[in-house]
Amino acid sequence: MLNVIKIGGNILDNEEAFSRFLEAFSKLEGEKILVHGGGKIATEIGHKLDVEANYINGRRVTGDDTLKLVTMVYAGLINKNIVAQLQSFNCNALGLTGADGNAIIAKKRPVGDVDYGFVGDVVAVNGLLLKQLLDAEITPVLAPITHDAKGGLLNTNADTIAQEVAKAMSQYIEVSLVYGFEKDGVLKDANVDSSVIPVIEVNDFDQLVADGVISGGMIPKLQNACSAIRAGVKQVIIGNALQLNNIINGEKGTIIK
Amino acid sequence: MLNVIKIGGNILDNEEAFSRFLEAFSKLEGEKILVHGGGKIATEIGHKLDVEANYINGRRVTGDDTLKLVTMVYAGLINKNIVAQLQSFNCNALGLTGADGNAIIAKKRPVGDVDYGFVGDVVAVNGLLLKQLLDAEITPVLAPITHDAKGGLLNTNADTIAQEVAKAMSQYIEVSLVYGFEKDGVLKDANVDSSVIPVIEVNDFDQLVADGVISGGMIPKLQNACSAIRAGVKQVIIGNALQLNNIINGEKGTIIK
Repeated sequence: MLNVIKIGGNILDNEEAFSRFLEAFSKLEGEKILVHGGGKIATEIGHKLDVEANYINGRRVTGDDTLKLVTMVYAGLINKNIVAQLQSFNCNALGLTGADGNAIIAKKRPVGDVDYGFVGDVVAVNGLLLKQLLDAEITPVLAPITHDAKGGLLNTNADTIAQEVAKAMSQYIEVSLVYGFEKDGVLKDANVDSSVIPVIEVNDFDQLVADGVISGGMIPKLQNACSAIRAGVKQVIIGNALQLNNIINGEKGTIIK
Repeated sequence: MLNVIKIGGNILDNEEAFSRFLEAFSKLEGEKILVHGGGKIATEIGHKLDVEANYINGRRVTGDDTLKLVTMVYAGLINKNIVAQLQSFNCNALGLTGADGNAIIAKKRPVGDVDYGFVGDVVAVNGLLLKQLLDAEITPVLAPITHDAKGGLLNTNADTIAQEVAKAMSQYIEVSLVYGFEKDGVLKDANVDSSVIPVIEVNDFDQLVADGVISGGMIPKLQNACSAIRAGVKQVIIGNALQLNNIINGEKGTIIK
């Protein structure tokens, strides 16, 4: 089983917690791929560089300056520090953007009501490259930057990258797609941390939404999870990144299958 | 023959010229590795971030903030834009720091008369990784950042990285080490661009220095070239990066052998 693990949310901003996550990740047996998001540091550094974050519908609008900023911070600062830390934990990590080895091609999002700028929607994942790296006992670490194959880099949502990578790898091996964040899983009641729903069957999803058991921001996340499973991914796990072993073992978190 | 090509100097700061270089690089037949330096952009971005460049004996002193800066600019901004451009020229490039795939381990330079900070001297090059990438028809693009295998990144001279990579690869294949910059080669008279010395035999080097034919800043560069050849590198070429084909063919530039 290949674990494709996406790490995001506040944990990236907490150096000590993040290091604990990386140590746990490095100790996971079997093949694994890490996908990371950005964190607050891009906003902080952008502030110093007079590149202000601009969000529309929860997505960062990526102008020329913002593209440079996220390329520096995501592909440089964050990615390389993750890789160096994993190496210190004896995990042979190798950092990639979508441009590296043509790992992920994307298409600039068409301008509709909103122009998101240099934001890319994934077109193709080079599963063969990732497989070759895994076969060589290398652990790919993906930054949320893709390329358009015409020389341009594109800012791309890390959740989507994880999902597309998981789908692409499913043709080679059984894949478990893991979303690690600061909550304990999908909650029945967003205000009650202990209200984790342990298992969601894809076929029950629509009914759970209709019944109001699943609501709010979790709906699109779970729709993506269901679509990944329909595309061949074995299971999707959503849970606390600091309980990595427990959520992968199925002891904690929410499993969608 | 494997070409290990180091590109540095002003050419990195000239977008149009640099793009022409990358197009010529992408068209080179056979296996190749690109090593790039930094350029002025790190200083410019550092200025905005209040990280001022500090040089001692021509080498940047790397404090904590400078390390973050060069990791962002070298490994992020510059490396990924090079890789994306090479991909657009149908060269399957993959960017690496020394941390990625454990490509280059370095040791923090001991504090002597000067404390250079987070500057690394190369300890080991993972030639096997580079060979595996080349065998998979991937072109490695190396940023001048290494790691200490204990979780730390280190700023490392790009000339040295090119030399150490060339030496390490010589155990697998004949290597030509190419230093591309803005001059036409090693000049007899630094003021006369046409005074290129076409060939320097390693055994004649000391005599050429004694006779004053080679002088100034070229001496350490050529000493490094001679040491690379003694360590198994087939030849070293120094020449104009914008005449890449001509210098690799031996029509222009200086060849040391």
